[in-house]
Amino acid sequence: FFSPLPRDSQVRIMETTVANAEKYFGLFCTLMAAYTRKTAKLRDKSDLLVKQILDYANTENPELRSTMKRFAEELAKVQDYRQAEVERLEMKVVEPLKRYGVQLKQMRTEIKRFNSVRNNEIKQLEKLERLRQKSPSDRHTLSQAESNVHKASVDASRTTQQLEETIDEFQKQKLTDIQKIFLDFVTVEMVFHAKALEVYSSAFQILTDYDLERDMEDFRAKLHSASGNYDARPVSSTNPSSSLPWSSSSQSIHSTPQRQEESEYDAEEHRLQDFSDPEEAPTR
Amino acid sequence: FFSPLPRDSQVRIMETTVANAEKYFGLFCTLMAAYTRKTAKLRDKSDLLVKQILDYANTENPELRSTMKRFAEELAKVQDYRQAEVERLEMKVVEPLKRYGVQLKQMRTEIKRFNSVRNNEIKQLEKLERLRQKSPSDRHTLSQAESNVHKASVDASRTTQQLEETIDEFQKQKLTDIQKIFLDFVTVEMVFHAKALEVYSSAFQILTDYDLERDMEDFRAKLHSASGNYDARPVSSTNPSSSLPWSSSSQSIHSTPQRQEESEYDAEEHRLQDFSDPEEAPTR
Repeated sequence: FFSPLPRDSQVRIMETTVANAEKYFGLFCTLMAAYTRKTAKLRDKSDLLVKQILDYANTENPELRSTMKRFAEELAKVQDYRQAEVERLEMKVVEPLKRYGVQLKQMRTEIKRFNSVRNNEIKQLEKLERLRQKSPSDRHTLSQAESNVHKASVDASRTTQQLEETIDEFQKQKLTDIQKIFLDFVTVEMVFHAKALEVYSSAFQILTDYDLERDMEDFRAKLHSASGNYDARPVSSTNPSSSLPWSSSSQSIHSTPQRQEESEYDAEEHRLQDFSDPEEAPTR
Repeated sequence: FFSPLPRDSQVRIMETTVANAEKYFGLFCTLMAAYTRKTAKLRDKSDLLVKQILDYANTENPELRSTMKRFAEELAKVQDYRQAEVERLEMKVVEPLKRYGVQLKQMRTEIKRFNSVRNNEIKQLEKLERLRQKSPSDRHTLSQAESNVHKASVDASRTTQQLEETIDEFQKQKLTDIQKIFLDFVTVEMVFHAKALEVYSSAFQILTDYDLERDMEDFRAKLHSASGNYDARPVSSTNPSSSLPWSSSSQSIHSTPQRQEESEYDAEEHRLQDFSDPEEAPTR
């Protein structure tokens, strides 16, 4: 007269729901953490690129030097936004998914408790069935067994009520969480892409504004000043048989004019820095 | 009376220019290739995420199932754009930088040729100097040596003229290339970020439109239909002592209503596909 079947089906739905959540939230957590790590690696490679563009800038004439430095600054800003993306993904996506794993373990404990109450009801029912077949005339024992079944059934009914509420609460929380976590993911990504687009637009303008002809004029002037420089050093220092014609010793010859040029570039850089807006980029 | 010094300075500027270009274009090539690889890895992780979200969708009720499927489709579109980004970076940034390495090797050969002509001039000058000290009275030998110096100097002058043109050409090409390669890089990135922003905006809308209450109603109906389902199967199949309570056998119970639900979702998906614009996303 008591059927454990409906409760069993509910527990099964519950168990499937929790098992699926454990499986997929676990996978989402692993993949989102991997996605975040790969993003961090992309930032690392870009940081190296920024560094090398700045080094390269220092080997070039004023015009390209200034263009490359300003371009590298924009590229560095993108990496600052990428770093912010990494931190927000950790905080708003990976961490909530991790915390969810803890919640799911608590749900498993709850289900175990429901199962033990439900199993007790089945055990009492089976005991009663055995007694009815073995000793159908033992009224006292049968009556006690019937009372035990009744008690177990009342317990099961009460926990079933609790189970229904817990399932409902759990499902609602799960649906809210999955929506929130993915919305946060999308928001973090949107903010990054919008900022990156903005900074790259500015980088595009910097590269477009580059005046190649002015740079070529500087280069030609430098070459002609070199060809007009007759009083520099003795013939022996040209070292024509050297296997390293562009060794470091040969660079020192031009140290004085290069230093003069450098101080000119510095002045220009300071002017350029006055026009740039450092507040635009987030700090790491 | 002939000075090799100015030409030497020019060659030195040329050599420094080529050496710097070799160093930095090589570094840029390596770093851009690494950046492209890391981007491809980010795409791979995202592809796995898309796959798992689709798998997860199939374990959920109609409302979340549809939301997750549509969300996964948007996330897949971002990966298609990322794949396009990877291909464009390869074609427009990494390949041109690689080709530049070949051009630089040709420049080194040119410089070697200039150096050998220049060194011949120096050698003839030194020979004349030695002869003047050893045998200042040997008019015939001195005159021949002077003639050799003159010839070598004319050669050097001609190649210096060529060198100046080659330097000019090379520098102009280099400046054009560096501007073009970085402009192409920025353009590829801008296109990707703009497209990603567009797709994520649509993904945001899909997640915001998710009707949690409708999903909860479905879930509650499923639970209550389970608790009212008395004629399903014999008690023995409940197998309460099983260590795997959510084994595959328990899922088959709901196979019939699930299939019905699936065909409903299919109809809904076809309707949704009619509204979407598949031409927007690039194919891999």
